Formats: sequence, C-alpha cells, structure tokens
Amino acid sequence: MITQVAFSLPAYPRGFHIITDLLRAQITPLPSAGILHVHILHTSAGLSINENADPTVRVDFESIFNRLIPEDQDFYTHNYEGSDDMPAHVKSSIVGNSISLPISNGKLILGTWQGIYLCEFRNRGGRRKLVATIIGS
Amino acid sequence: MITQVAFSLPAYPRGFHIITDLLRAQITPLPSAGILHVHILHTSAGLSINENADPTVRVDFESIFNRLIPEDQDFYTHNYEGSDDMPAHVKSSIVGNSISLPISNGKLILGTWQGIYLCEFRNRGGRRKLVATIIGS
Amino acid sequence: MITQVAFSLPAYPRGFHIITDLLRAQITPLPSAGILHVHILHTSAGLSINENADPTVRVDFESIFNRLIPEDQDFYTHNYEGSDDMPAHVKSSIVGNSISLPISNGKLILGTWQGIYLCEFRNRGGRRKLVATIIGS
Repeated sequence: MITQVAFSLPAYPRGFHIITDLLRAQITPLPSAGILHVHILHTSAGLSINENADPTVRVDFESIFNRLIPEDQDFYTHNYEGSDDMPAHVKSSIVGNSISLPISNGKLILGTWQGIYLCEFRNRGGRRKLVATIIGS
Repeated sequence: MITQVAFSLPAYPRGFHIITDLLRAQITPLPSAGILHVHILHTSAGLSINENADPTVRVDFESIFNRLIPEDQDFYTHNYEGSDDMPAHVKSSIVGNSISLPISNGKLILGTWQGIYLCEFRNRGGRRKLVATIIGS
Repeated sequence: MITQVAFSLPAYPRGFHIITDLLRAQITPLPSAGILHVHILHTSAGLSINENADPTVRVDFESIFNRLIPEDQDFYTHNYEGSDDMPAHVKSSIVGNSISLPISNGKLILGTWQGIYLCEFRNRGGRRKLVATIIGS
C-alpha cells in the first residue's frame, strides 16, 4: 500500500526549524507498519533529523554550517544568485534532501529527542514544496 | 511484506565501528528482493556505509570529523551537556541517522569494500537503539 | 511490487556529474506510485541530488569539497592508496551513497532544478556499479 501527499511548508527564515508536527498533520492516518519517505523539491534547503528540545542546538547548527561552508569565497564561480546561494547548494547535499523513518503501530518512530528539521539555507527561501510517500501494510 | 525489528547495540567507544554482522544477525532471513532501512533513534550518533577492511580508515574518519566540527568553540551556545555534545549533533546530521540498502536473492547487497558503520560521536554514548524495517517481496 | 536493476555507469573524471538521464534509461517503465532507491556499491564515490542547470555549481562543489576534506594531511594514517583516497572515503559518507526519490504517475519526482549527481571523488574511479530498486504499486 503506497500513499503520497504533496504539500508546501510556510516560508521560514534562514536556519534550522522543527517541522515534525506540521509534517504529521499531512500524513495522518499512518499504516500499521512501514516507511515514511519525505523529499524536498529544492536544491538550497534540506531535511534532517536532530535534537527537538533545546533551541540553542538549532542556533549552533546555523553558526556551524555557516563556518563550514562560508559565503563569498574568492574561488566561487557560481555567485550571480547571491552570496547565500552556492553555500546553500552544498549545505543541502551535506544534510540531504530526504528523510526516511520507520512507521510502527500506526505511529512515526522517532527517538525521544528526535525532531524533523527543515534546513533553510537561503535568506529568503519562500515556501518549500515537499512530497511524502508512505509504504505500508 | 513489511517486517520490523527493534534492537540495541552494545555500547561502543567514541569513533567509527563496523556493525554489519551484528545487524545481519537481527534481520535474518531476508526476503528475495527489497529494501532494508535502518534508523538510529539518537541525535548524537549516526549510521553510514564505508570501507570495511582497513581499520586506519576509521581512525582517520574520527580525526577528520573532529577537525571538521571542533569542540569548545567560543560561539557555541549549547554547551551544558559537555564539549562533545554539540559537535555530536552536527556530525550526526552530516552522516545521517539512517541507511537504506538493496536486498537481492535473499541477501543484503553491499559493495565488496562496503561495511555498515555505527558513528559514535559521544565519549560515552552507551547502548544505541536501532529500528530495522524490511520491505520485501 | 519490487523491481531491481544493477548497472554500471561510464567512467567519469573526478568531480560532480549529472546522471539523471542515464539513470532514467535504466528504470523505465516506472510504476504509478512508489519510491526509487539507488545505491552505489563503492566507498569513494557518492550520490546526491542538486542543481541541474548551471555547470559552475558543480565546479564549485568540487572546489568546496576539496577544501573541506583536504588531501595529504599529516595526521592521515590511511595514505597508501594515494592522496585522493582517504578524502574520497569521507566525502562519500558526507554526501551519502544512496538516494531515494518519489515516483508519481509513472514519473520520477524531482524539483524543477534538481538533478541526480554522481559524486566521483577518486582521480581515476573507473566505472561505478549501481543498484536501483523500485518499490511501487
């Protein structure tokens, strides 16, 4: 049994944002067992799973990724879409543009401290489009 | 046909560790064709697939990740859980917290040199919980 | 319904290369709905999804990854397979060795600007082997 839903997130500012509840609202009800796959249809944002409790973690994520892939490097050749563009592409490939999670007893299986992150790497990324696919039995 | 098993790994020290055989023991028998998905229920450890033969590769993995995301940076705001905590979160999102592999003829399909890594990013991560889901026919 | 195909890519030079059309040719026809999973059977190359239009993006990807994980560091212990080898392993775990994409209405669902990248991290990686698995209904 395969079900699919395409939806858009509200626009988020640059940074790491928990979207677990927003996502759950799109995929209810879930099958008794299976896999949820969520794909983001963009190349300058990503999806990840990480700490869901303390907002300072997400602040540090933004700082660390900005230092890891800095803007405005002399050797960049792709720079006509803004300083945030080329780093956004690379950050997107580093965190990835999809997540997959187990479904068990009709529920999404996440660790106690796990939440689903939208990783918005553009200053003004706008509304991001996602496709959720559920393979279940 | 979907089967699922939840299990814990033994506690590993910080570093990169091959768990291919431990994992295989949990998921036998496999269907004739399908996908294995394994998810780790933590935000300071990860799963990856890499070189399975020479232990020096895993030593260098640890050194490289420690330099990539160093501890005790002045700009970190999430630091009350220890020096290894915030870097562990970011490393986890970089390698990812799940792997997916093809199953063919009842066997897990890995390249000759591929093994499954537990990436333990905490000094004392303890026993890590995993969920394996098999979609097969 | 699960279908699987194993195939090899032509040899590519080191760098990031779009293989969307080559891959599509291997997996046609697709089911009406499902998931495509593609796994690369190597530890010094990877798969990713990123910008498909401007080749300068892929040039910068190569430059950025080379600076992120530089060759010939004094602390590397795994260095007998060449300067490009150990960085290639780490880069592979950073971008990942598989991608998953939704299938809808018999088509692979990619964002307007998304293409599938072979990330070739060796100077002479040769022909890379992939396994595509399609779970569909």
